[in-house]
Amino acid sequence: MTVPPATPDPDRYVVGVDFGTLSGRAVVVRVRDGEELGTAVHEYPHAVIEQRLPGTGAALPPDWALQHPADWRDVLRTAVPAAVAAAGVDPALIIGIATDFTACTVLPARADGTALAELPQWADRPHAWPKLWKHHAAQQQADRINDLAHARGEKWIARYGGKISAEWQYAKALQLLEEDPEVYAACERWIEAADWIVWQLTGAESRNACTAGYKGQYQDGAYPSEEYLAALHPQFADFARTRLEHPLAALGSRVGSLTAEAAGWTGLPQGIAVAAGNVDAHVAAPAARAVENGQLLAIMGTSTCHVVNGPVLAEVPGICGVVENGIVTGSYGYEAGQSAVGDIFAWWLRQGLPADYLAEAGANGEDAHQLLTRKAADQPVGGHGLVALDWLNGNRSTLVDHDLSGVIVGLTLATRPEEVYRALLEATAFGTRVIVEALEQGGVPVTEYIVTGGLGKNALLMQIHADVLRRPVSLAVSEQGPAVGSAIHAAVAAGAHPDVRTASAAMGRKRSDAYRPDPERADAYDRLYAEYRALHDKFATDGTLHRLRRIRNAALAAAPTTSSEAP
Amino acid sequence: MTVPPATPDPDRYVVGVDFGTLSGRAVVVRVRDGEELGTAVHEYPHAVIEQRLPGTGAALPPDWALQHPADWRDVLRTAVPAAVAAAGVDPALIIGIATDFTACTVLPARADGTALAELPQWADRPHAWPKLWKHHAAQQQADRINDLAHARGEKWIARYGGKISAEWQYAKALQLLEEDPEVYAACERWIEAADWIVWQLTGAESRNACTAGYKGQYQDGAYPSEEYLAALHPQFADFARTRLEHPLAALGSRVGSLTAEAAGWTGLPQGIAVAAGNVDAHVAAPAARAVENGQLLAIMGTSTCHVVNGPVLAEVPGICGVVENGIVTGSYGYEAGQSAVGDIFAWWLRQGLPADYLAEAGANGEDAHQLLTRKAADQPVGGHGLVALDWLNGNRSTLVDHDLSGVIVGLTLATRPEEVYRALLEATAFGTRVIVEALEQGGVPVTEYIVTGGLGKNALLMQIHADVLRRPVSLAVSEQGPAVGSAIHAAVAAGAHPDVRTASAAMGRKRSDAYRPDPERADAYDRLYAEYRALHDKFATDGTLHRLRRIRNAALAAAPTTSSEAP
Repeated sequence: MTVPPATPDPDRYVVGVDFGTLSGRAVVVRVRDGEELGTAVHEYPHAVIEQRLPGTGAALPPDWALQHPADWRDVLRTAVPAAVAAAGVDPALIIGIATDFTACTVLPARADGTALAELPQWADRPHAWPKLWKHHAAQQQADRINDLAHARGEKWIARYGGKISAEWQYAKALQLLEEDPEVYAACERWIEAADWIVWQLTGAESRNACTAGYKGQYQDGAYPSEEYLAALHPQFADFARTRLEHPLAALGSRVGSLTAEAAGWTGLPQGIAVAAGNVDAHVAAPAARAVENGQLLAIMGTSTCHVVNGPVLAEVPGICGVVENGIVTGSYGYEAGQSAVGDIFAWWLRQGLPADYLAEAGANGEDAHQLLTRKAADQPVGGHGLVALDWLNGNRSTLVDHDLSGVIVGLTLATRPEEVYRALLEATAFGTRVIVEALEQGGVPVTEYIVTGGLGKNALLMQIHADVLRRPVSLAVSEQGPAVGSAIHAAVAAGAHPDVRTASAAMGRKRSDAYRPDPERADAYDRLYAEYRALHDKFATDGTLHRLRRIRNAALAAAPTTSSEAP
Repeated sequence: MTVPPATPDPDRYVVGVDFGTLSGRAVVVRVRDGEELGTAVHEYPHAVIEQRLPGTGAALPPDWALQHPADWRDVLRTAVPAAVAAAGVDPALIIGIATDFTACTVLPARADGTALAELPQWADRPHAWPKLWKHHAAQQQADRINDLAHARGEKWIARYGGKISAEWQYAKALQLLEEDPEVYAACERWIEAADWIVWQLTGAESRNACTAGYKGQYQDGAYPSEEYLAALHPQFADFARTRLEHPLAALGSRVGSLTAEAAGWTGLPQGIAVAAGNVDAHVAAPAARAVENGQLLAIMGTSTCHVVNGPVLAEVPGICGVVENGIVTGSYGYEAGQSAVGDIFAWWLRQGLPADYLAEAGANGEDAHQLLTRKAADQPVGGHGLVALDWLNGNRSTLVDHDLSGVIVGLTLATRPEEVYRALLEATAFGTRVIVEALEQGGVPVTEYIVTGGLGKNALLMQIHADVLRRPVSLAVSEQGPAVGSAIHAAVAAGAHPDVRTASAAMGRKRSDAYRPDPERADAYDRLYAEYRALHDKFATDGTLHRLRRIRNAALAAAPTTSSEAP
């Protein structure tokens, strides 16, 4: 882009909307240079539905996690106009909108796009509701999906590190079929929320290349075969053909125009470009200028997702997926992840702090996180004598096992809260190192490590990552990577930039090498990482954590509410 | 004992004095039936000296733990007369006094019993001071003691489960010789505080059979040979002969009479019986009626000590010691222990509690311990999915390894403070089960499990022990087991009862089978114990915890005070 002439055309703008786990965020961005002019957030009134169904109040089984489609539509109604108002731009100058979503968040719909959950005849059936990405009740189905794929030698299984997640489209759909066949029969389309929300904007179905590939096992131009699906369950044979199949849209492509109804919701001009759906992690890459091959983007928040492009197809054990054109058209997109990162630190803070710590934080005007961070930063590497496994929410990469759990090793009577805290920070960095090493050993070079998301502000965590990884850490500048990434895709869909890489160069921003590794600390971390790796390998394979989980589940099922102790 | 006749002789009384880690307690007990009539406590003004030497303020190295002999003498001066006053008995009716002490707490003294620490010329030398049982800076010496004993095939090493502790007489003395030869040269007697305090009462040296056997490797009538000691260090050859050797006194025997000076301190009649010294754990057995073969007494507090008598000599791997006449004359006394028990629960509480927990405790008038206990009691066995290793202060039995540390396995983002708390309670019960199983497998039957000490009041912990051990738990009635046990020994020394077993039957009290195992919970615990045992065996042998400790120690030594993080 060149500097505008003295009598310029007016600047044009795009809107990006990021649908997260608890809220949706809209941002208005200038097409020319990516400047963020206004933003607004809408918290979902129903948040994550884990205990009881809205309306009937029916109790949900353990490990369920649902969402309410009306909450998502309300983001379009409230956050988008609020962001435009905050930006102070003329809505007439907005030329496109794009959205991204958590994934795999997936729902059953009618052929016209109506969510079954919003139909009175199905609203009292839990399986009619959208299943949030972290719905973890389909592990049994995922196990069978994996076993059968390996038994039959399905080619696509290797593209997912050898394991399909219980979070993804097939496991959740198979659970639906097996647990509520009537709802399954009424489900005419099984659709990612990423595509469903676009349907709300354009009035027509579309399917994006990213979720189809990463969450729907679409590989080499096809979904899994009917023979394979029939072997899982006879009635599942036509699942992909009848409920998924649809031409796939490239990321950043225009899939339709804003309908009059959606224009009414959003206050945006009818007819502007609507981009293909996308996933919150992948969409953030252009906002952080992480679109060239080898530039790994870590989206670090409650959990971490890693996305990186490579020039060739490699099947990397334990990496959650490789999809051609899955991040940026023209490359193979690799995805990996850590099931919990910030959530682990928050978990430790939730356990409480000593009274004198709270008093100290109060006197300094710090919150608990700041206090522990400050105290943890004073420790020499290894001075706590601890090593932890960062599996408190399972392990996505490279083990793809949600039934793993966390371990802390090396506790003494002198162990202090900030020492456990630091060990947990380090554990997430070790987990990242396992992923980066797996990528590189699997043939996917990592040339730059770039962080976006809320945890990028945690200087101690970033320095630990640089030291543990023995490489610099770059930082995305925007604090709204997914929403800005969506806006960049909207600009491409509207024709303002020729492709996503060009748009990223114009609109994305990062601070290169913001943290550099210290050789001495890196050496010290090599020694701790060796311990982490040994514990990782032991607990990944020896069955201890799975047995403990089975014991837990059996105990809770047998005695959900009563006391176990005699007085 | 029979009921006294209508015109009875006046009742007689005895005084027991228990020297603990932070205070000394005196109790006045009726000889006829063990009734406790008065008690008083004196807190040591110098407590545990870990940072700086009194007087000069010289800094102590890590892992040191000293005490001040004047603090102990002050217990005689203050707590004893206060207990007599509280009892409201005529001091003239007190016929004996006995003491017990932490062990191995040991000090260098002149030939006349003067503690070197109380001589001006030595008071500025750390090695002149009494080393408290938990002085842990002599591990290097202990390692050599053990290696050499095994290399030479010393017969006595098997009596201590194959390992001599760094806490015991020889390791601490060898550290003294090697680190401060001048103080070693001035040390004419190397004496347990248990015997030193008796010297203060009688004016003459005595040595008790218990500490000589358990802490001084006195076996089959002899200390370790001069050849063995010379091989450790040439100047150590005559250590036992010159600094330890003395006729051993049976437990409960009269070793002397109260001197005029000590009568002045205590307010007791000059010339009354003074019993042989004893150890706080072992002395408690008669107070809990745990003196018959097979009755295991667990003294449960910050740590746990297990003592049990057996009719024959068995060399049990990992048991801290077997000593003929070491608990009660006529039996083989076996000792085992857990380095931390209550200390572990206190450690977890020290990490803090969530604000809403604190509010709930405040509203209920509970303390934090009561709150967590109540919440933990509501959990079904195994419902937390956790298993922990109770090694936060190392492992005394059966691994005899102070360099081990704690492990918590199975954490999830849903894990709550009371779940970790319960897992820690259970871990200590599992650790106990390892000890009981080792005893029984080693040929020492355990017919009754009896608990004394502060943790006996913790009903949840007691029930967990009953369920985990699959056997009833009996409870000592007295809350002052060691002091009352000493009083019982005083009664025997004064001739009021013929022997300790008879005196225990008359004066000791317990509540048999206060807690009984629940078969269903016991089955559930068998499954968790299998996991504990597998982790126990792994971490005991695979070197992880030792490497983490070495990493920790190196890190702290290299950077004791500075920040490790770049800004």
